[in-house]
Amino acid sequence: MYIGALDIGGTKTIVAVVDEKGNIYKKEKFSTNTSDIYAHLDYCACVLRNLLKQLNIDERALSGIGVTLPGIVNSEKGILINAPYEKWENVQVSAYLSDMFHSISIFCENDVNACAIGEQFFGIGKKYENYIWMTVSTGVGGAVVNDSKLVKGMNGFAGEFGHLKVEYDDPDICPCGQAGCLEAHGSGTAISKAIEKRVRKEPSFGEAFNTALQKQDASGCAYLAKSGNKIAVQIFEQTGEYLGKGISYCVNILNPQAVIIGGGVAASLDLLLPGIRSAIEKYTFKPMQDIEIVATPLGYEAALLGAASLVLQGKEQIHGNEGAK
Amino acid sequence: MYIGALDIGGTKTIVAVVDEKGNIYKKEKFSTNTSDIYAHLDYCACVLRNLLKQLNIDERALSGIGVTLPGIVNSEKGILINAPYEKWENVQVSAYLSDMFHSISIFCENDVNACAIGEQFFGIGKKYENYIWMTVSTGVGGAVVNDSKLVKGMNGFAGEFGHLKVEYDDPDICPCGQAGCLEAHGSGTAISKAIEKRVRKEPSFGEAFNTALQKQDASGCAYLAKSGNKIAVQIFEQTGEYLGKGISYCVNILNPQAVIIGGGVAASLDLLLPGIRSAIEKYTFKPMQDIEIVATPLGYEAALLGAASLVLQGKEQIHGNEGAK
Repeated sequence: MYIGALDIGGTKTIVAVVDEKGNIYKKEKFSTNTSDIYAHLDYCACVLRNLLKQLNIDERALSGIGVTLPGIVNSEKGILINAPYEKWENVQVSAYLSDMFHSISIFCENDVNACAIGEQFFGIGKKYENYIWMTVSTGVGGAVVNDSKLVKGMNGFAGEFGHLKVEYDDPDICPCGQAGCLEAHGSGTAISKAIEKRVRKEPSFGEAFNTALQKQDASGCAYLAKSGNKIAVQIFEQTGEYLGKGISYCVNILNPQAVIIGGGVAASLDLLLPGIRSAIEKYTFKPMQDIEIVATPLGYEAALLGAASLVLQGKEQIHGNEGAK
Repeated sequence: MYIGALDIGGTKTIVAVVDEKGNIYKKEKFSTNTSDIYAHLDYCACVLRNLLKQLNIDERALSGIGVTLPGIVNSEKGILINAPYEKWENVQVSAYLSDMFHSISIFCENDVNACAIGEQFFGIGKKYENYIWMTVSTGVGGAVVNDSKLVKGMNGFAGEFGHLKVEYDDPDICPCGQAGCLEAHGSGTAISKAIEKRVRKEPSFGEAFNTALQKQDASGCAYLAKSGNKIAVQIFEQTGEYLGKGISYCVNILNPQAVIIGGGVAASLDLLLPGIRSAIEKYTFKPMQDIEIVATPLGYEAALLGAASLVLQGKEQIHGNEGAK
C-alpha cells in the first residue's frame, strides 16, 4: 500500500511516499511558502508526483494522501481553519488537493494531533489506549488520546498543554500574551533563556559552551549536561520539573497510561526525567502516579508518519462503518 | 418506565423509585452502614421493595436498578473496587443485587461520574457533548464527558480535579497527603478554614456570624456575603479563584463547552463566579475562554438522578449495540 504524506510546517515542509508499515520510500524537504498557501499546495502536489515518478509508482495506486497542518483543522471537512503564525485562514486543503488528485482520498489534521495518531500505527502508541502526546520543541504542544481516539473538544483546541500555568511566582511571558505558561518555562526556547540568565550570573558557564564548541541552546546545554556540567544538569532538571507539573495536571484529569514525548527536546528526555518524576511525585494524585514517560521512537519523522497514519485511520473508519451497516 | 435508584454515599444513602423523565415517585434517606456493605445492600433492597409496594408497582416492572458508589467502580463488572474512606474493597455490587432482583439489570458507577451522566438525561448536559462536571462540597470531585461519553482513563480515576495543584506558594495540606490541592483550597472545608483564619485576625467577622445566627461554615459565609459582608465576599472570590485555576487546567487540556458545578457549594455559584471568571481570564488559553459555567439544575438530587440515568444509559447502549448487529 502506498500513501502520500505531506507534513506542512510553519517553516519547513516534507513530502514523502510511505507504506502502511511506515517505511519511507522517498522524501523531499523544502521551505514552506507562507505567503501563498494555495501555491504551496500546488508545489507539494508537484513534488509528490515527482517522487511517485522516480519510484515508478502510478498515482492511482495511492491509498490516500495525509496532510498535517500547523493550526486548527476541521478534519472532517479537510479545512485549515486558522494558523495564526502563518496568517492562514479557512484554507480548503482537502477540496483543493482533491481537484488535483481525482479519486484519491485526502485526510487533514493538526500536526500535533497527527503525531499522536501516528504513534498508534507506527510507534509506541500501539501499546496504549489512553495516552497523551507532548511536543517539546521551540514551543510546547499536545494531544489527548482516550480509548484510542483523539479528544478534540469544542473547537478542536484540546491538548493546549503549552498554556497550562506552571509558574505563578516568577512567571515568564509566553508568546500567547499570558504569563507562567508551560511553553514559557518548559520549552526549548525556555532552556535557551535559562542558559542566558545563568551565563549572566556565571560567565564560566558561557565559556563552557565555547570550549565545547556548542551553541548556547537546548542541544548545546544537553551536550554539556551529558559531559557532567552541573549547571546544565540543573537547567534540564528545572525544565523537567515544569514539564512534570503540566503532566501532573493532565494525569489528574485524564488518568492516562503513558505520556509520549516528541519534538527536538525529546532527544534529551533522560536529562528531563529526574525533574519530571520529582514533579509527578509531588503534584500527581498518588493512585495515578504509575505512568510511563517515553520518547517517541519516531523521532523527527513523527509528524510525517502522523500524516501517513491519517490515511490508515481514515480507511479503518470507513471500513469500521461499513462493517456496522 | 420505572427505575430503581440507589445513591449510596459514605454518610447517607437515598433509595428511590424514579421514571425516565426524572420524576421521583418516592424516596427514603437513611444512614449508610459503613461497617457492613453487604448488610447495607440488603437493607437498600428491602427499602426499595417497600417503596415499590407503597406505590403499588410490581418489582418486575422495573427497567433496571442504578447504583452510585463513593469510590472507584468497575462499571462493566458492577464491582466497587475501592472506597478508601469507608474501607470497602472489591464489593460485588451488581452480582449481589442481581441475586435479590432476578432478571432486573443492575448498573453501577462512581457517584461523581453518575452525576455527569445524569446531566445528559435529566439536566443541562443535554445541551453539550463536551463538558466537565465538578462537585464542590466537603471535597472537590470531577468527571469528564467527551463526545457524550464518560472519560475514565487507565484505572477509572479520570476527573480527579480535587488534586490539581492550585497553590504552590502557601499550600494547605490535603487529606490525600499532598499540598496545594484544589480540594484543600477550593472546597467547602477550605471555606470553613478560611473563615477560621479571618476570624482569628478580625474577631468582628466572627461576631457577624453570631449576629446573623449563622454557623461559621460555607453556607453561613454565603449568607453573610449575600448580606454584603465584604470579608465573606472576599472568601468566596478567593475560593472561586482557586476553582477557576483548576477549571483553567481542564479547559486548556480538554476544550469543553461547559463546566457544570454541583455539590453544596454550587448553591453559591454566583458568589464564586467573579473569582472563577478572573482566574479563567488569566490562566486559560485565550481562544478557549468562551466556556459556560453553570450550576446543575438537579441540586441535591444530582447523584440520585445520576443513579437512575445509569439504567437509561445502559438501555441505550444495549439498544445501540443491537442496532449495529
